[in-house]
Amino acid sequence: MLRYWTAGESHGKCLLALIDGFPAGFEINTDKIDELLVMRQGGYGRGKRQTLEQDHVDVLTGVWNNITLGAPITLKVPNNDYKLERLKELPRPRPGHGDLSGSLKYLSSMRGILERASARETCVRVAAGALCQQLLESFGIQTLGYVVQLGGLKIPGKEGTLVQRKAWRNESEIYSLNPDLDGEAKTLIDETKKAGDTLGGVIEVVVEGLPFGLGTHAQWDRKLDGKLAQAVMAVQAIKGVEIGMGFEAAGLPGSQVHDGIQYESSEKSTANLGYVRPTNNAGGLEAGMTNGQPLVIRAAKKPISTLQTPLESIDMETKQPSKASYERSDVCALSAASIIIEGVVAFEIAAALIDKFGGDSIEEMKARWDLFHEMAGEK
Amino acid sequence: MLRYWTAGESHGKCLLALIDGFPAGFEINTDKIDELLVMRQGGYGRGKRQTLEQDHVDVLTGVWNNITLGAPITLKVPNNDYKLERLKELPRPRPGHGDLSGSLKYLSSMRGILERASARETCVRVAAGALCQQLLESFGIQTLGYVVQLGGLKIPGKEGTLVQRKAWRNESEIYSLNPDLDGEAKTLIDETKKAGDTLGGVIEVVVEGLPFGLGTHAQWDRKLDGKLAQAVMAVQAIKGVEIGMGFEAAGLPGSQVHDGIQYESSEKSTANLGYVRPTNNAGGLEAGMTNGQPLVIRAAKKPISTLQTPLESIDMETKQPSKASYERSDVCALSAASIIIEGVVAFEIAAALIDKFGGDSIEEMKARWDLFHEMAGEK
Amino acid sequence: MLRYWTAGESHGKCLLALIDGFPAGFEINTDKIDELLVMRQGGYGRGKRQTLEQDHVDVLTGVWNNITLGAPITLKVPNNDYKLERLKELPRPRPGHGDLSGSLKYLSSMRGILERASARETCVRVAAGALCQQLLESFGIQTLGYVVQLGGLKIPGKEGTLVQRKAWRNESEIYSLNPDLDGEAKTLIDETKKAGDTLGGVIEVVVEGLPFGLGTHAQWDRKLDGKLAQAVMAVQAIKGVEIGMGFEAAGLPGSQVHDGIQYESSEKSTANLGYVRPTNNAGGLEAGMTNGQPLVIRAAKKPISTLQTPLESIDMETKQPSKASYERSDVCALSAASIIIEGVVAFEIAAALIDKFGGDSIEEMKARWDLFHEMAGEK
Amino acid sequence: MLRYWTAGESHGKCLLALIDGFPAGFEINTDKIDELLVMRQGGYGRGKRQTLEQDHVDVLTGVWNNITLGAPITLKVPNNDYKLERLKELPRPRPGHGDLSGSLKYLSSMRGILERASARETCVRVAAGALCQQLLESFGIQTLGYVVQLGGLKIPGKEGTLVQRKAWRNESEIYSLNPDLDGEAKTLIDETKKAGDTLGGVIEVVVEGLPFGLGTHAQWDRKLDGKLAQAVMAVQAIKGVEIGMGFEAAGLPGSQVHDGIQYESSEKSTANLGYVRPTNNAGGLEAGMTNGQPLVIRAAKKPISTLQTPLESIDMETKQPSKASYERSDVCALSAASIIIEGVVAFEIAAALIDKFGGDSIEEMKARWDLFHEMAGEK
Repeated sequence: MLRYWTAGESHGKCLLALIDGFPAGFEINTDKIDELLVMRQGGYGRGKRQTLEQDHVDVLTGVWNNITLGAPITLKVPNNDYKLERLKELPRPRPGHGDLSGSLKYLSSMRGILERASARETCVRVAAGALCQQLLESFGIQTLGYVVQLGGLKIPGKEGTLVQRKAWRNESEIYSLNPDLDGEAKTLIDETKKAGDTLGGVIEVVVEGLPFGLGTHAQWDRKLDGKLAQAVMAVQAIKGVEIGMGFEAAGLPGSQVHDGIQYESSEKSTANLGYVRPTNNAGGLEAGMTNGQPLVIRAAKKPISTLQTPLESIDMETKQPSKASYERSDVCALSAASIIIEGVVAFEIAAALIDKFGGDSIEEMKARWDLFHEMAGEK
Repeated sequence: MLRYWTAGESHGKCLLALIDGFPAGFEINTDKIDELLVMRQGGYGRGKRQTLEQDHVDVLTGVWNNITLGAPITLKVPNNDYKLERLKELPRPRPGHGDLSGSLKYLSSMRGILERASARETCVRVAAGALCQQLLESFGIQTLGYVVQLGGLKIPGKEGTLVQRKAWRNESEIYSLNPDLDGEAKTLIDETKKAGDTLGGVIEVVVEGLPFGLGTHAQWDRKLDGKLAQAVMAVQAIKGVEIGMGFEAAGLPGSQVHDGIQYESSEKSTANLGYVRPTNNAGGLEAGMTNGQPLVIRAAKKPISTLQTPLESIDMETKQPSKASYERSDVCALSAASIIIEGVVAFEIAAALIDKFGGDSIEEMKARWDLFHEMAGEK
Repeated sequence: MLRYWTAGESHGKCLLALIDGFPAGFEINTDKIDELLVMRQGGYGRGKRQTLEQDHVDVLTGVWNNITLGAPITLKVPNNDYKLERLKELPRPRPGHGDLSGSLKYLSSMRGILERASARETCVRVAAGALCQQLLESFGIQTLGYVVQLGGLKIPGKEGTLVQRKAWRNESEIYSLNPDLDGEAKTLIDETKKAGDTLGGVIEVVVEGLPFGLGTHAQWDRKLDGKLAQAVMAVQAIKGVEIGMGFEAAGLPGSQVHDGIQYESSEKSTANLGYVRPTNNAGGLEAGMTNGQPLVIRAAKKPISTLQTPLESIDMETKQPSKASYERSDVCALSAASIIIEGVVAFEIAAALIDKFGGDSIEEMKARWDLFHEMAGEK
Repeated sequence: MLRYWTAGESHGKCLLALIDGFPAGFEINTDKIDELLVMRQGGYGRGKRQTLEQDHVDVLTGVWNNITLGAPITLKVPNNDYKLERLKELPRPRPGHGDLSGSLKYLSSMRGILERASARETCVRVAAGALCQQLLESFGIQTLGYVVQLGGLKIPGKEGTLVQRKAWRNESEIYSLNPDLDGEAKTLIDETKKAGDTLGGVIEVVVEGLPFGLGTHAQWDRKLDGKLAQAVMAVQAIKGVEIGMGFEAAGLPGSQVHDGIQYESSEKSTANLGYVRPTNNAGGLEAGMTNGQPLVIRAAKKPISTLQTPLESIDMETKQPSKASYERSDVCALSAASIIIEGVVAFEIAAALIDKFGGDSIEEMKARWDLFHEMAGEK
């Protein structure tokens, strides 16, 4: 059972992820984690804070000379901008944030709420996800997140292998699969900034190389589609999640939605065991289980809640109308979101992989992977 | 902590929900549970099976003369159509179902998978949800699920109070909020049936009367938006979930999305404590917490996977192309889905309510509800 | 992940255990479950109720022609003595029971508390445990519970193979490992009954054939010794748990406690992989993991709390001194406890086995068992 | 819901405890945490390592100027003796440790196992427990752990108020409740050291000021006795747990065990609500719930597993007989164990308190505490 929690405040000492149940004997590459941390800070349209921090991960526990021990792994990302103790209470709640609800629920200051609710926390979710991506890659499973829509602007990706698509994503300043379209997107961001406004958009994550049977149909709280939806929706600012065709499937007849089943021994791979689907409208999940096809999941991110032209709010002391407090913020953090959603999806997939193949050691996991594919291949 | 699991097969003896952590001292109305069970079986476009069963709930445990004991409650819905032992293996996997993936994962028969994966299981999720709705109602919290889109046909609801909307939903054969539009919808279903095809659509659930502060921002796995997304996505055939504006919010600038904050002592209610939002694009959730506004959540249901004109499949023995097996099915179960999603949402809200106000006794919960609103009202 | 909850009241319709995560493809023998249910009702010194009930299990869900489906399994034991609706409130709390604490906590009747707190509930824990014992046996793992002390009377068992010891246990009316000593024990019970008093004692459970590495040292809540202690202590009337030498180890120097490590290729078995321990004072668990030796765990059961010569109590209405209410009860249920503790231990071991070897199908579990022993055997 | 995990290796960078669900608005006193950390390192009979470290806690997350935020709290204890990367593999498994089982389970080095299995980890369990003790104290709930038996030597405590007993415990070099008896105990430790041997013993923890109704009878995995047993047994080297009379209760008739119930309005306190028990053989727990009496729990600690005169082992490479590897160790860490068990018990009690009274804010918890005692007092 792989599980994790995070801790830390936006301007506190650090952010932490404690990961329990990661297999032993796996060599961690922290540089590759840092690469994703840096990508999370990047993308066109970020504010000043991202240049203050140059995130890097410190592996506090669970490894011996970079090899995992089967013990809990703690990933720490220090806050260069640590100044929590000096900060003041936030006087006016910001629409779109948890300031108001949190301070009522906890009968507390709004500062205390926003420090924890802040998307700064996602840096350690990226770190945890990056660690899981390394595990997945050792099984030939690849995860890639990218922008498919910026505000009202759709950004169709170029078609190519996952390696090619990853290269395009990394090349694009927007983190789309089509760097050629960056110009239009950047203009939109610039104009939005000028207007004192903010942008959201849509992220897509694809996972390739998945075996059959991650997740299960047997109990509602163990279905992989449910777990993925929770993980994605629990990311700051996400308001929608869809798998495969998603909402589009709701509008079409069954004959245009469901993916036929074929068997082609010539196309047999570990992932598909020879079962071929001419389409993948299900997005790789049927009945809460992976079906040997690529997983495709999309998330809708609302525009950033903190606007330079502040929204209507009140003063909490007087309850009189007043502009919302302004905390330093970005115009658009959609590119970052593609890295974050990639990370939380990778975590859930790794958890499902460990659920299926065990989590004691990478050596045993791999032997079991082969064993399962032999046994399932004979059915 | 309120939690539940279900058990049971489509053609087994019964379906069961075991609910742990429900407060003591609450009088259960089983007739009202049965009403929702019957609604789940209804709606225009259902197949023959729904007339075979006339679902009713049997409360096996946890009550004494209909009063809850604080002990686990077991809700049982018997299968009139119990015949599992006589059923045969399914020879050809059905696209859109878990038949193939499940039988590979469990190295088992496909019959065993489909019997558990079947949407028949949702009857006890409705029962569990109906029980929770009664609890919520005793706090003035109302839940309502309805159809807003059938296949490609949008069905805008009429505006009215929740009581009025519920009446329209109950009147409509489609379970929309506009019975006047039933005709067009029924025609679409009839035509789809004639074509041997199936339909999905979009469900919306609204919850009114919610207090501030259900859920939390503090840890990813305790955020209410994440929990709701899991619960809804884990319902059979659901491929998308969105909260408030959802995917639409991704396409708009922040100034058109975020809901201003006002304070109007004249409009003070238990739910809003006087904090008024001119819009509710957030759908009642900010930073993983309820914000005193109605919760609005939508689910995309794919068309039913079993088509009378069967989809392309293979024979599992020979691996040769063959039409998918046909198991008795509906053309459209979207109306049912509105009751089911209503149920799983009600469950999660009740769980969050108990998380906030405790779950030992209804008497103590109510006193704490008042206490909290006093304390939060003074902030 | 194997997990279970129970539901049901002492005089309600039935008791239920819902077991989630049991592997597919396993043939259940309900007769063998019933045998243990009947043993739980037996043993010298039981009261009249045990003759009213003749417990048998009904498998409501999760099987198809007795073969498990990988779906949740529901075990139901009906109450022949169902009469809950006709029962009256208990006026005077019984010392040793939860009557008083429960009614204050839940602001409820004491009847409602006692109905759920009653040891009648253990029948379905025995059923769940019996199911798990069948799973364990298919891996050559045997579980046996027996009485080692009745009140102040120690009943040393005879030495023999586990098969022999089981035969003696089943032969003994006390469920000890020495039926020859039944006479003295029965006299003690008879005298205690005459005195209007009750008896407890000490149970021992041994599990043989365990592999290395069930449980883990890595996180406190996944240690097998902790899980076993929880499971055993959470059985009604248990006030102490010890593993291996237990409390005796506290009084001896390390040189007399710790079990040396030897390697004897000639004594290599699946369980020990050739690692031999001349003693087993650790009781099969070191650092929260099984160590290839038999698990030995003991539980202290307090005397039955309901005495025919009632204890000092009060009337809840008047708060005046009064004798405790009397609910039909036994003089001694220690023999039953040996079956119950055997059951809950078997459940935890099965859960740990599934944690290590997976729980999708019995076929895959067995292949992985072999694989692990090959891999670990090469170290 | 209060929950926690730990992370860290014995010679790694640090140990960590991540605590989720701690209420907001509570002022943390880190000096008092450090006091218990230092006590954990003390007691007569400790080895050299304890002088190398001078443990202190660093609160990494979850507070703002020492006030809790309702966010996850991370407690870090740095290892002054950090040298993990330079350490070598352990060649010969040590009896009583997880070296052998762990390395087989994880197909890994033994060094990796021992680093995590080490009792060094308990420093952060003490820290987490110390934090919880502060919370409990604000409700008038006091926790105290002490030694009652050292090896074969019983050390009866002096009778007095909890404040007095705490003073004696803090004065005693053994951490018993009778510093006058330290001499005999120290002699035993000295002699054991000379003999190259080690000692264990028995710890008792008492919790006073508990309200009625922490824990529940309703479900096996929510019973407080089970949770306490898990927490205590999962501490390194603990082999037995008993509550109240414990194993002694097994040997006595019911009339000498169960605690009568009286009502004395003159002795009414928050904890007991006027319900007085002339004895407390149940140790404060009946049916898995607190009963208004002091909680009394005892743990049996086996002697330290690493002996200066090494135990019989093998060389893992050659499988030939060889003396166990020696890792720097203590003769006796029983005094430390009293602080550790005090800590884990305090954690479980705090978790149960939050389960009953909520965990959003200390302010709301206190108001609910009063409310409950009013409501329950009227029964």
